[in-house]
Amino acid sequence: MKEIKPIRVEKGMKVSELVESMQEAGFGAKKIAEASRIMAEMFRDEECKVFLGVAGAMVPAGMKHIILDMLDYTDVFVTTGANLTHDLIESLGEKHYHGDELASDLELNREGIDRMYNVFMKNSVYEGLEEFFKGNFRELAKCSNIKNFLWKLGELIPGNSGESILKKCYEKKIPIFCPGIADSGIGLMMWGRISENPEKNKTNIDVFEDMNEIIDISWTAKKTGVAYIGGGLPKNFIQQALQFSKGADYGIQITTDRPESGGSSGAPLREGISWGKMNPKARFVDVFCDATIALPLILGAVKSYSDDGNNE
Amino acid sequence: MKEIKPIRVEKGMKVSELVESMQEAGFGAKKIAEASRIMAEMFRDEECKVFLGVAGAMVPAGMKHIILDMLDYTDVFVTTGANLTHDLIESLGEKHYHGDELASDLELNREGIDRMYNVFMKNSVYEGLEEFFKGNFRELAKCSNIKNFLWKLGELIPGNSGESILKKCYEKKIPIFCPGIADSGIGLMMWGRISENPEKNKTNIDVFEDMNEIIDISWTAKKTGVAYIGGGLPKNFIQQALQFSKGADYGIQITTDRPESGGSSGAPLREGISWGKMNPKARFVDVFCDATIALPLILGAVKSYSDDGNNE
Amino acid sequence: MKEIKPIRVEKGMKVSELVESMQEAGFGAKKIAEASRIMAEMFRDEECKVFLGVAGAMVPAGMKHIILDMLDYTDVFVTTGANLTHDLIESLGEKHYHGDELASDLELNREGIDRMYNVFMKNSVYEGLEEFFKGNFRELAKCSNIKNFLWKLGELIPGNSGESILKKCYEKKIPIFCPGIADSGIGLMMWGRISENPEKNKTNIDVFEDMNEIIDISWTAKKTGVAYIGGGLPKNFIQQALQFSKGADYGIQITTDRPESGGSSGAPLREGISWGKMNPKARFVDVFCDATIALPLILGAVKSYSDDGNNE
Amino acid sequence: MKEIKPIRVEKGMKVSELVESMQEAGFGAKKIAEASRIMAEMFRDEECKVFLGVAGAMVPAGMKHIILDMLDYTDVFVTTGANLTHDLIESLGEKHYHGDELASDLELNREGIDRMYNVFMKNSVYEGLEEFFKGNFRELAKCSNIKNFLWKLGELIPGNSGESILKKCYEKKIPIFCPGIADSGIGLMMWGRISENPEKNKTNIDVFEDMNEIIDISWTAKKTGVAYIGGGLPKNFIQQALQFSKGADYGIQITTDRPESGGSSGAPLREGISWGKMNPKARFVDVFCDATIALPLILGAVKSYSDDGNNE
Repeated sequence: MKEIKPIRVEKGMKVSELVESMQEAGFGAKKIAEASRIMAEMFRDEECKVFLGVAGAMVPAGMKHIILDMLDYTDVFVTTGANLTHDLIESLGEKHYHGDELASDLELNREGIDRMYNVFMKNSVYEGLEEFFKGNFRELAKCSNIKNFLWKLGELIPGNSGESILKKCYEKKIPIFCPGIADSGIGLMMWGRISENPEKNKTNIDVFEDMNEIIDISWTAKKTGVAYIGGGLPKNFIQQALQFSKGADYGIQITTDRPESGGSSGAPLREGISWGKMNPKARFVDVFCDATIALPLILGAVKSYSDDGNNE
Repeated sequence: MKEIKPIRVEKGMKVSELVESMQEAGFGAKKIAEASRIMAEMFRDEECKVFLGVAGAMVPAGMKHIILDMLDYTDVFVTTGANLTHDLIESLGEKHYHGDELASDLELNREGIDRMYNVFMKNSVYEGLEEFFKGNFRELAKCSNIKNFLWKLGELIPGNSGESILKKCYEKKIPIFCPGIADSGIGLMMWGRISENPEKNKTNIDVFEDMNEIIDISWTAKKTGVAYIGGGLPKNFIQQALQFSKGADYGIQITTDRPESGGSSGAPLREGISWGKMNPKARFVDVFCDATIALPLILGAVKSYSDDGNNE
Repeated sequence: MKEIKPIRVEKGMKVSELVESMQEAGFGAKKIAEASRIMAEMFRDEECKVFLGVAGAMVPAGMKHIILDMLDYTDVFVTTGANLTHDLIESLGEKHYHGDELASDLELNREGIDRMYNVFMKNSVYEGLEEFFKGNFRELAKCSNIKNFLWKLGELIPGNSGESILKKCYEKKIPIFCPGIADSGIGLMMWGRISENPEKNKTNIDVFEDMNEIIDISWTAKKTGVAYIGGGLPKNFIQQALQFSKGADYGIQITTDRPESGGSSGAPLREGISWGKMNPKARFVDVFCDATIALPLILGAVKSYSDDGNNE
Repeated sequence: MKEIKPIRVEKGMKVSELVESMQEAGFGAKKIAEASRIMAEMFRDEECKVFLGVAGAMVPAGMKHIILDMLDYTDVFVTTGANLTHDLIESLGEKHYHGDELASDLELNREGIDRMYNVFMKNSVYEGLEEFFKGNFRELAKCSNIKNFLWKLGELIPGNSGESILKKCYEKKIPIFCPGIADSGIGLMMWGRISENPEKNKTNIDVFEDMNEIIDISWTAKKTGVAYIGGGLPKNFIQQALQFSKGADYGIQITTDRPESGGSSGAPLREGISWGKMNPKARFVDVFCDATIALPLILGAVKSYSDDGNNE
């Protein structure tokens, strides 16, 4: 058995040093450090296809750059329509704001403010979105699957790939999947155009077409790794594809959902072993933590590892 | 201020009596009772269109009949592909089984058992599913939107509407939406057929087409009510449609997710007021409880209310 | 493997029938049913000493009668000072009230209302408490351990044992332990008297003296069973005593705390096996649920079992 | 409204820089940063008496040095007997070990290993404890209150104040309160000696005596601040004392417990305003996070603030 050593926090300490110290401790601290090691290894392993699944309103909460950083190592990206809508909103020059989760929602409604816990957004952002989709509907409507539709969005939006998830996925040709795209502001905007003129404004984006590509990547990968930020549809859609692999070789899950209520979001990674979604020999860890706290720590440590895996 | 009165549990007590007694108590007990009253009122209000959103593996956990019962009062049903897949699996004669959440997932994998917390399923169920989809692909592939596809499934599956959610939605013409259908066993089965012969086996189910109908129901409703079992995509898709209403007039949410991590699943109903998804004058309640515990209690009470709202 | 059967909720259904039906289902529903069976068996087993630990503000929430009912089968009762203070407050004729957890705490403070989630209490209840302790200090100060002090309280308070936990423990001579008694309104009241006249008003209640009795009961018991409502000090104090038994033979735990943060309150019962607090052959179940929801259901079923264990 | 700015994680970044960046983000990230600012301010405010409450098995999890660091700014320390027992165990040369939370508790029991989530301890540590208490019982038994008893323990244990919470509290004369001391290994050891020879080995530590001192500190303080790591008895005992202040002026709470189940551990700090335990004008924040993750981050930032409050 290996001794626990107390975490020592020093003035001027680096994030990577703190995470190293957490490796020696127990409970969640240990899990954070484990996750950083697994993520670093997974990112470094050239045979490994990395599947990143991101649920929750991560972009509004200020996690955009952390996702952009992780995309540098990502082979398949699955997320919710909400995250992509908020990415698009920021690309169009709009902002998210600090707010109070105890604010009066009635007051906010009167002031035209939408609330996501302690993050606020002006409802007027939808006007800019409408403009954008009016101008670009024709181009977008040509796409035959969701991935191409999202890449097209990334191509059309202003700004650069250092500031937009959609643009980066487009430019780096990172396959991006979002089966629930209809369930988002982007979906609403497309519906708005279609319903204005149902005869003329048609789309033809088949719901099943993307499956081919994600399953193919899983099927042909020598090794696979997963990072689930939140659960939801992104996790489940990746898990489904992994049934066609030998099971993921690396796994990280960050969620605050409970396993007892039986949903996929709160299910520990090991449950995936029974289904063949996780390889029994995999290195994996479940982190019970708000992702806006856990991910900056984990990524801070990952960035400090050199190419040979040592902490620089 | 109204006095708290201790709950009194009696031998032979009815569920409805217990819930009545919980109405007098505090904490979660009170919320359960509130939820039963709001649900009863919402079901009874003839002007109210009821939107039911069900996430989580509710069918495997034995909640099928409870959902079937609620469908009698439901105008719009939104759920995950997983629930529908498990409904289909049961329609084809397969079963779910009691299991231990601490079982070895490696052992289960060797025995061909898939685990969902303390519920087990034989992986071989997918063979029957394949047969079914092989025989019915042509019919299914004709559908142009997900709702019609699911109604068609309901039409084609064996059994009766007292035992199948899909069949009941088809027979009673309850609009059923599932934007993430690709993310499910049903999606996999469709993909399997398509990929066997991509030239010949094509589908043409547009991702955005269903939005028209759900938004139209919301838009034209005099009043609306929501019941969210879990959060996820079902809740969010209904919330999105409700932006086109005056905000829901009734609301029940049953979830164990945390609000602090900022996702839609854990957000309290009142957050929806800021967005205009919930009416500021609505009667609503958030129930923090495993739905497999809360729903039987709530529905047990709802069933006891007579048509004029009194407890019989 | 045993099949899951969907829960069927019927109009006029009894609580015991509902719990029977939950036994056939999965997730938390199954756990509720298991808990009722284990509790019934533990209460029926004449060789078994039952240790009941109750944390959380159960009395203010309206759980007093449920605790009183369970005391009929309890050999050792451990609780927090808060629960006993609120029991005493109710015995002195004061009340708890329904409130809104979103109320302005500043407003409540101005109105002299103390809040416990959605339960309110007038701060003026402390005046009656002071009167009571002024009149009875001399008697109370004679006690040499906490158990006797609490029995004395039970003897002195007005009312009858059908309405007071303290009185019932005194009258039925149920050993009642509360190591943290100083941390409660009762503690405050005693301190108030002592500090008025430190020379004259002295107590002499040794902190360790009660340990002898609880450990002795554990040590000499043929069999032991535990029911933990919440965790905290009550659970831990019982667990500690059980190290001197062969480990509990029956166990029920109802809590919403997480295991990942490593505290005793969220630790699953099986962790106790490593310490020898739980017998490896024990029948036990962890229920993840608000106790104000779970306990009425469980006890409702327990009451329906006849003496030979069959559901009547 | 202030804009959210995405967190940017850089290679070689300092913990304090990361926390600064989290200040610009939403959800829990923002709360961590807020907590570090409030803690720094509270520690710097010379008029403020700081009350630190620590529940949960923080010492076994490797949080000893973090607690030791915080004690430099603490005027009143309240904790569980468990934390002090594990502090003592480490002072006597014993260790805690890394373990797997999924290990077989039956196997661990056979090997004499006690488990606390993913932290293991040899049960044989109790032999060393017994030796220690045999040798020191007489000295310890002379104490008349728990605080003096714990200071005496700190005086008697080997090692230095840089490695022991008990020793540091003794040497720095930090008042340390632990109303539930009977509920701990320390309590067990005392009971063991007493029960060996009840006639000769007596203690006389009154349960109420410490209240005087903690309430006096609260009563006479110009300003007060609280930091609650976990809830439990430590939080509640401090809250109780604060009723005799003008309400805390600063507050930090780190817990993963739910508010809905109504216990003190999960209650948000603002609830204390209704009771007068928290000042309505206080700066306070609730952090929903495993303390072993949150505290190293918060303290890492606090250490970087210079004496004038700027980040160095």
